[in-house]
Amino acid sequence: VSLKVTKQCNENNNKKQENNSEASHNVTPLLLDSWKPYKGTRANVKERLLKLRDCLESVCGIQWYGFATLGILTAVLSFLMDFSVAKLLQAHLWLYGKLEGHILLQFLCWTLYPACICAFASSFSHNICPFSTGSGVPEVRTMLSGIEVPHYLSLTNMFTKFLGLTCTLAAGSTVFLGKVGPFVHLSTMLGAYLDRLCRLIQGKKKDAGTEMMVVAAAVGVASCFGAPVSGVLFSVEVMSSHFALRHYCPCFFSAACGGLTFHLLSAWSRDGETLQALFKTNFPTATPFFPLEILLFALLGLLCGAGSRFYLFCHRWILKFTKTNRVFLTMLTTEKGLYSGLVVFFLALLTFPHSAGQYLASKWTTKQLLTSLLDSRQWSSQSHNASVRLELDSLEWSSSGAPIFLSLAFFLLMKEMWMLVLACTLPLPAGYFMPVFVYGLKKALEIKKGSLIVKWSYWPMSFFAKVLPKSYFLVGAAAFSGAVTHTLSPALLAVELTGQVTHAVPALLSTLLANALARSRNGLSFYDGLSISKKLPHLPSLKKACPQLPSTPLGQVMGVKSVQLQKAAGPAEVQSAVSNSSEAQIPVVDSHESQVFLGCVLRSELLLFLHRCQTQRIEGRLDEVCSIRPNSVVVSPHNTVQEAYNMLSVAPAQTIFVADRGKLVGQITWSEMKQILVGLAKDI
Amino acid sequence: VSLKVTKQCNENNNKKQENNSEASHNVTPLLLDSWKPYKGTRANVKERLLKLRDCLESVCGIQWYGFATLGILTAVLSFLMDFSVAKLLQAHLWLYGKLEGHILLQFLCWTLYPACICAFASSFSHNICPFSTGSGVPEVRTMLSGIEVPHYLSLTNMFTKFLGLTCTLAAGSTVFLGKVGPFVHLSTMLGAYLDRLCRLIQGKKKDAGTEMMVVAAAVGVASCFGAPVSGVLFSVEVMSSHFALRHYCPCFFSAACGGLTFHLLSAWSRDGETLQALFKTNFPTATPFFPLEILLFALLGLLCGAGSRFYLFCHRWILKFTKTNRVFLTMLTTEKGLYSGLVVFFLALLTFPHSAGQYLASKWTTKQLLTSLLDSRQWSSQSHNASVRLELDSLEWSSSGAPIFLSLAFFLLMKEMWMLVLACTLPLPAGYFMPVFVYGLKKALEIKKGSLIVKWSYWPMSFFAKVLPKSYFLVGAAAFSGAVTHTLSPALLAVELTGQVTHAVPALLSTLLANALARSRNGLSFYDGLSISKKLPHLPSLKKACPQLPSTPLGQVMGVKSVQLQKAAGPAEVQSAVSNSSEAQIPVVDSHESQVFLGCVLRSELLLFLHRCQTQRIEGRLDEVCSIRPNSVVVSPHNTVQEAYNMLSVAPAQTIFVADRGKLVGQITWSEMKQILVGLAKDI
Repeated sequence: VSLKVTKQCNENNNKKQENNSEASHNVTPLLLDSWKPYKGTRANVKERLLKLRDCLESVCGIQWYGFATLGILTAVLSFLMDFSVAKLLQAHLWLYGKLEGHILLQFLCWTLYPACICAFASSFSHNICPFSTGSGVPEVRTMLSGIEVPHYLSLTNMFTKFLGLTCTLAAGSTVFLGKVGPFVHLSTMLGAYLDRLCRLIQGKKKDAGTEMMVVAAAVGVASCFGAPVSGVLFSVEVMSSHFALRHYCPCFFSAACGGLTFHLLSAWSRDGETLQALFKTNFPTATPFFPLEILLFALLGLLCGAGSRFYLFCHRWILKFTKTNRVFLTMLTTEKGLYSGLVVFFLALLTFPHSAGQYLASKWTTKQLLTSLLDSRQWSSQSHNASVRLELDSLEWSSSGAPIFLSLAFFLLMKEMWMLVLACTLPLPAGYFMPVFVYGLKKALEIKKGSLIVKWSYWPMSFFAKVLPKSYFLVGAAAFSGAVTHTLSPALLAVELTGQVTHAVPALLSTLLANALARSRNGLSFYDGLSISKKLPHLPSLKKACPQLPSTPLGQVMGVKSVQLQKAAGPAEVQSAVSNSSEAQIPVVDSHESQVFLGCVLRSELLLFLHRCQTQRIEGRLDEVCSIRPNSVVVSPHNTVQEAYNMLSVAPAQTIFVADRGKLVGQITWSEMKQILVGLAKDI
Repeated sequence: VSLKVTKQCNENNNKKQENNSEASHNVTPLLLDSWKPYKGTRANVKERLLKLRDCLESVCGIQWYGFATLGILTAVLSFLMDFSVAKLLQAHLWLYGKLEGHILLQFLCWTLYPACICAFASSFSHNICPFSTGSGVPEVRTMLSGIEVPHYLSLTNMFTKFLGLTCTLAAGSTVFLGKVGPFVHLSTMLGAYLDRLCRLIQGKKKDAGTEMMVVAAAVGVASCFGAPVSGVLFSVEVMSSHFALRHYCPCFFSAACGGLTFHLLSAWSRDGETLQALFKTNFPTATPFFPLEILLFALLGLLCGAGSRFYLFCHRWILKFTKTNRVFLTMLTTEKGLYSGLVVFFLALLTFPHSAGQYLASKWTTKQLLTSLLDSRQWSSQSHNASVRLELDSLEWSSSGAPIFLSLAFFLLMKEMWMLVLACTLPLPAGYFMPVFVYGLKKALEIKKGSLIVKWSYWPMSFFAKVLPKSYFLVGAAAFSGAVTHTLSPALLAVELTGQVTHAVPALLSTLLANALARSRNGLSFYDGLSISKKLPHLPSLKKACPQLPSTPLGQVMGVKSVQLQKAAGPAEVQSAVSNSSEAQIPVVDSHESQVFLGCVLRSELLLFLHRCQTQRIEGRLDEVCSIRPNSVVVSPHNTVQEAYNMLSVAPAQTIFVADRGKLVGQITWSEMKQILVGLAKDI
């Protein structure tokens, strides 16, 4: 029976894989389907592919090819998306430019184009795969902590997410959402698929590990910006409590492949000869910054931290509002497309270049904004050409110095923050990291102005005249986005994006201070807020929201008693245990009275035992036929949920048993743990 | 009794701390020693210090001040050492220059100066603290994995190591050993001390965690070069199996403090205005490298990997040789000073500028070599001025092209490798990372020449004429040192040292390939080799040396049965258990016959129980008086050592119990685990 079951399982697997890819079809062991044509050719091809597999395996493990493929494919996806988004944006601006003189037509073009695109993306992703909306990072974090989240790794989801994200990005500056989060999710889905493929090629049938997913998290960030090191750091940070060192090299390898491919593709597409930093900067290398400026950077970090708390407060408020307000709730549940269209239309109204948009640099895309803010050469030339009010401010500041500008800028920033928060409610596949990064840049501009006032009154002019504003944007962006997401990798990302290693230390310091402020008093990060609002079983988020929760004793939250067998069980008891339990291991006790835990027995052995009993018509005893495996880890019901969780993370067989004074109480697998965490999440 | 014991313990602690520092003396709770003078003043000072403590604690936890102090102090130590070494080297070269014309005197000056310094350092460190010799990284790795290594964290060791290392570095290019490893060790010692101080200030008496040590490992690298990110990555890499995420922010914080202090000190000492990369480079930013060069970088990585295997083979051979050869053995055990003096004299003979030294750029220190090899401006001017044969080669290569140069360079490199391997046997506090880095640079020069030949015959000249050689040095150095130490952080270190982010991806790729080659077939890293030769109980090294060893079942290697109490134990049994065991927790079983494990009871409670029995003269039972804590983790004797090790790393109380089918077999703490690992290490 057991053989049959595994065979069936295997065949199912094969069929799935065949549908998905041509390559895997050929690599699977020879199928003896006589009705298929070209038997000889197929056999020939298969033999060669098997030889190729052996040849590949002799160099290094198949999974390493998987890591390389993951990196390269994600980078190609990232490049394709950038390319198509750029074309769509160009088309929009071209149309807008052609309608010059017809204000009404221009207005319709400006507002309806993004509104239609977003409405389409929203209803498309809702209809094809409703799980593809949002950033995906909270779900990826939950999956990385070992808990399965169904529907989030399907290929349908991947294609929906890819198309939806392209549409969202094509909406341009109106909905200035990013692509980091969705890309992490995309690469996770790709990674899960490649993982299955690798295991099929290797002929292994063991459960999927989280290795490919950890790697995929690193690749997502690395391929998005061609920044491998910050990708790996991001991957370390999203892990729940421990980063396993065996994932370290795969992460770096895959991220390096992804980063390299992304750089090569961008270099070739631009007909450029060389590989450069994504956002070229040319800060003078001789005098990057002065020692005393460190204090200003630290102040900037603290201000960004305070700003992030306000931003997170607004975000949580609107999350709650959309969940409790009846109008929003009905719209978000039934008319997602309409809601997206209306919100984007409203945002487009605000950003229309002939209305308030002139103050918002709305004609520029996120990427252009970043480039212009970070590049000192283009500084003066571009700010005069384009209708960029903000940049102009900073130039004119020294001449006018009136506080009107300050209040105006403040007003704009506040409004923009609300726009950003509103955009976050859109049911679209979208990332929230990049807008936060850009917002941080603008915030830094604000603070830079503040510091300019300070400079005016207190410190000697000559010293601060040399101070470069761009470094403040860089550091401010890193600090703000780091504080919002409770991570430190943005500091390194800022360095890798711009190629300015000299600013690594100030960026790091600023991000650390901002993080300290953002994390104080159990502050929730952006992703924690989303996790809790979605009631995801993610322990670190729960811990932040309610610190005493993970200290709950295991005994209080454990579910129903699990199936168990006694040592002397006969076929009837084994039969009922097998049909009642779906676990791979079933615990064995001394007797149902004493309940002393002995070990566990594999499900496959039990099936074999039943099979033998049926065919040979004998009444065997469990301990005479099957081997009871005693190598298991036991905790007591008085251990806390957090402790059990930690144990489960490192337990050899992904199962721990719970016994009170030698007596078996139950067992905990990841699915049990998931139920416990879902139960805990409900209480918040 | 228990109160007395803890009080005594506390007092002992206080006394130790008082000897060590003035500050801690004042912060300890008021001591009512009436004989001490200035009672009022002292009370006043103490009160203010306590207020200060509360004030500090209101901002953030005391341990964060500890992290900051650790970073700053390590950076100051690093700077002081650099400063004094520079002065000592200057003095040597000044003397050598003054003796121009007197070959014999010059010879004596050249050879005796480093020989005497090294002989002094060797006998000094041997006599004061014999544990201060060598790199210290293998011991730090062992300590980070949770196992105590006595004598390696004392303050005596720290001062000895600091002085010894200064002497070693002052020997200059003759013994071109580095300072990374010892600095990691130094910062660990400082960290352990600061940790004790912090816990004293907080008034906690709990056991020392590894947190400060993990942070210290990051700070060591960060303060050595002012490179915080690679410091943190190094810290992640030296962990044995899992990196706990709660150490992530402290690591970055402390490393940022250290890096910043180091940069500030260097900036102020050079009277410079700004903070720059340590080794300034000016690779052109417009064309850092061409896409096709990636292949050359990959090839370089593979060659570096192969070279590293040869180097590691030589290193292991000489380690074995010095352990088995009788002459070496007697010299190394009894006459360390003499041995060091002789070896350094021999090395100085070879590097004497009037003999073979002219080919070895021996007048240059490691730092100067790095600067000159990485700076393109100084390239042509310096190579003509100084007697640097190697650099000249590469310039003349295109004109002469004779294979004599190639063979000469090869011969020199081989000789230098042997010199390096010989220098590694010196019983001195010294680092082996930097020389390997520089050696990698030279190796890259070699390979660069090889690739030039290839270019000549196959590829168009015009393309490769633009190729910059320095980038090869950088990448080669990263790849070689990464391969020797089995780490990836050198790739990032190379970037942080030179400020060339554009080369991050090629350096990473090259390092990854070199690592793949070096790690294949269970290759041991440099530090693994040292760990095994020193028989340190470091599980990952043992696993590499003998892969089946960690799969040994726990039952086979467990020591004698531990002390246990039965539920109904009386005062006599408790008394004997307390005197026979030194653990903080003592396991309790149902009865000595059934041996069903119930939980454990705290030693302090047992002492209280005994005390009460003595004073009240009653015959109590254990389970009536003491609370048996059931929240413990149980493994079976069939679990492997590796599994038990992983469990122990995350176990809440740092103790796991071993029970076979409910019956207690023993318990495992870190000291038990150490014994098991020492036992396993003996078998190799």
